[in-house]
Amino acid sequence: MSHTTVLKARWILPMTPGCQVLEQHALVIQGERIAAVLPQAQAAIAYPDAEQVDLGQHVLIPGLINAHTHSAMSLLRGVADDRALMDWLQNHIWPLEKQWVSDDWVYQGSLLSAAEALRGGVTYLNDMYFFPKAMARAALDSGIRAGVSINVIDFPTGYGSGPDDYIAKGLEAYEQYKGEALLDWTSAPHAPYTVSDETFVKLRQLSEQHGLQMHCHIHETQDEIEGSLKQYGVRPLERLHKLGLLNERMIAVHMVHLDEAEIELIARQGTHLVHNPSSNLKLASGVAPVKALEAAGVNTVLGTDGAASNNRQDMFAEIRAAALLAKGITGDPLTVSARTALEMATIRAAKAMGREADLGSLEVGKLADVVAVSLDALECRPVYHADAQLVYVAGREHVSDVWVNGRRVLQQRQLTTIDVPALLDRSEAIVTQMKAGR
Amino acid sequence: MSHTTVLKARWILPMTPGCQVLEQHALVIQGERIAAVLPQAQAAIAYPDAEQVDLGQHVLIPGLINAHTHSAMSLLRGVADDRALMDWLQNHIWPLEKQWVSDDWVYQGSLLSAAEALRGGVTYLNDMYFFPKAMARAALDSGIRAGVSINVIDFPTGYGSGPDDYIAKGLEAYEQYKGEALLDWTSAPHAPYTVSDETFVKLRQLSEQHGLQMHCHIHETQDEIEGSLKQYGVRPLERLHKLGLLNERMIAVHMVHLDEAEIELIARQGTHLVHNPSSNLKLASGVAPVKALEAAGVNTVLGTDGAASNNRQDMFAEIRAAALLAKGITGDPLTVSARTALEMATIRAAKAMGREADLGSLEVGKLADVVAVSLDALECRPVYHADAQLVYVAGREHVSDVWVNGRRVLQQRQLTTIDVPALLDRSEAIVTQMKAGR
Repeated sequence: MSHTTVLKARWILPMTPGCQVLEQHALVIQGERIAAVLPQAQAAIAYPDAEQVDLGQHVLIPGLINAHTHSAMSLLRGVADDRALMDWLQNHIWPLEKQWVSDDWVYQGSLLSAAEALRGGVTYLNDMYFFPKAMARAALDSGIRAGVSINVIDFPTGYGSGPDDYIAKGLEAYEQYKGEALLDWTSAPHAPYTVSDETFVKLRQLSEQHGLQMHCHIHETQDEIEGSLKQYGVRPLERLHKLGLLNERMIAVHMVHLDEAEIELIARQGTHLVHNPSSNLKLASGVAPVKALEAAGVNTVLGTDGAASNNRQDMFAEIRAAALLAKGITGDPLTVSARTALEMATIRAAKAMGREADLGSLEVGKLADVVAVSLDALECRPVYHADAQLVYVAGREHVSDVWVNGRRVLQQRQLTTIDVPALLDRSEAIVTQMKAGR
Repeated sequence: MSHTTVLKARWILPMTPGCQVLEQHALVIQGERIAAVLPQAQAAIAYPDAEQVDLGQHVLIPGLINAHTHSAMSLLRGVADDRALMDWLQNHIWPLEKQWVSDDWVYQGSLLSAAEALRGGVTYLNDMYFFPKAMARAALDSGIRAGVSINVIDFPTGYGSGPDDYIAKGLEAYEQYKGEALLDWTSAPHAPYTVSDETFVKLRQLSEQHGLQMHCHIHETQDEIEGSLKQYGVRPLERLHKLGLLNERMIAVHMVHLDEAEIELIARQGTHLVHNPSSNLKLASGVAPVKALEAAGVNTVLGTDGAASNNRQDMFAEIRAAALLAKGITGDPLTVSARTALEMATIRAAKAMGREADLGSLEVGKLADVVAVSLDALECRPVYHADAQLVYVAGREHVSDVWVNGRRVLQQRQLTTIDVPALLDRSEAIVTQMKAGR
């Protein structure tokens, strides 16, 4: 029989329909999965020989899912802030990427992001970047779950010569790693303004053939929409719809600029939407119309975006921002409740990844991706409602312990899987080299 | 000669005009004041016998100033979230305040807020609440600097019978504590919708007589403006201007809804404006027009508001929100740079409090309100620009040490002035009683 662990916590938020907060319950992990959620008194009788983890004034929640990031870009965290988008991209980010990005660079940056994610209660990174083997290794080495991308744009980079090369390299990585329990794969056209119709169709076919979710930046800026109107005569969403790309396989990222008909379209098609509140504010792209999306029934989830546009890869910050922004922008204090914001980072995000059968809530039979958040610190006191406290009060710094796939990867804020000083030394060496321009 | 301490840090942000970041410098504290800011090598020679505090990969910044809060309300943190404003006020906050608020309740809540503030790098709380003696005691006991309010509304509460009673009680507190170095006092009419013309004038006269700044909620909601148009025939700002209240003594809080003429008016009058981004979003009041305020030259500073409307009393969060929101709302990525956002919480806020001669920057001769922020954690790495890193990456959890008036009140994240377990026990007892409704 596999190893059994009983986690006892003051509160459990299972994020199951109709269930708010369980008090004085225990969560039982057997092997990779959740075996039981039951009152602590019963757990003591039912599992007398199990390992006991007594967490005290903690809340247990499902592991948070960061539904959009570029993990490797942690190495560019803060390299160029307070810039206009095109200055930022053309004079800073792209030249640096062109000069430096390699398999090792992506591995080191992704490992740094995985470490940051785990310390902040994130158990699943939906990544988009080149060198997917490096991302896969970083996820496996850190013990985090990841959506690894078969990422494609239409122009050459240091990673590949063009779309067919990117697809071939992505498929090679996919074939090598597809048996790994921690990894999902996405067919990931970069964006409508960097990918041709022909390539979009190829990636749709790849998604259908291998049963993969798709992952694409869409309607991030007004410029993107105007460019599409000029080049294709239609807005990007309409173009993608004609190419058969808008359905429940598509994870559409940003979606800041949407008209009513577009909101209805994606609701009808079951397209998932990743809201990146901090990144969209920082790059001055705007704010996705979350209240209207909620009213239409769109599956809106949350992401940080990469560290070059959201220097703090912090899903607690995105959850709080999503809850606050939707209210302040619309004048409706009842929109995006604490509960809704938490769903966007857990059960809804699992659905977006096509993994709701296994992830996103603390239910018997699901995989044990579990996060313990301490509400013991004075800044988290008093506690009237544990669920709202997680959204409006607690931060990632209050995450104490994390389990992914049943494995304890963070123990009392210490990573069990990563040699942090060695990781920081290697990152520092890379950054020193970049600063020197060599 | 008074005690001398040499603080060595990798970076110092003095927040003086034209000076960005000093590297490998030391800050020397003698008694209550800053005696020197100089290269570390010179400090070793000049102060060989001083106490040395070697902070490593830290940034030293001026203590953050929270320019608007209701400290006692930490006891109501999270008591009622996701509610409409009037439901929140009338069915939750006001009844609870009416039943429970007392001198002891205000002391315990204010001490809890002072502890939270200091752990988050805040060295000055500009408070507005009743029972000012309790706030004064909490500030002195914790070692935090505070603006204590002579707070007045026109209706009776558990604290007093009406405006003359509030003024008399406030003045009594002021007379008792006015010699205290850590305390400033404000003449604080609650808001245009709760204070009559007659009371406003009395409080203006009180401000003039004693040389006090004023502190007032203004233009928080559209409802407030419409109510004023009905009752007084003018918008609140115009009414206050006619009463002689808009000048460099006025700290105007919220100011979410402003037309162009009003922005010009407050710029011309030198009125200070406290932007409370999180609170204004959470209560769905809107977003203050910070880009336009900057263009007009208004002295905009930052506050958290009380814990009932911003459950996280976190100035790092407000600094980041101010920088991000202004960009996202206006589509201008160049507005409210990291540097500007930091100024709003330091030197500009000192000016709003009328204390720029003594506070708000790390300059020789100013009072030693100093905060050390560690950039050593993996989520703060790499560091390209220490100033932007503070705004877009670091959080209050990275504050390691705090000095107020030359006294080290936080040492390696431990408060030196407050018995935290005893404080939490007392808070818990009060909250247990409140939950039981007794």
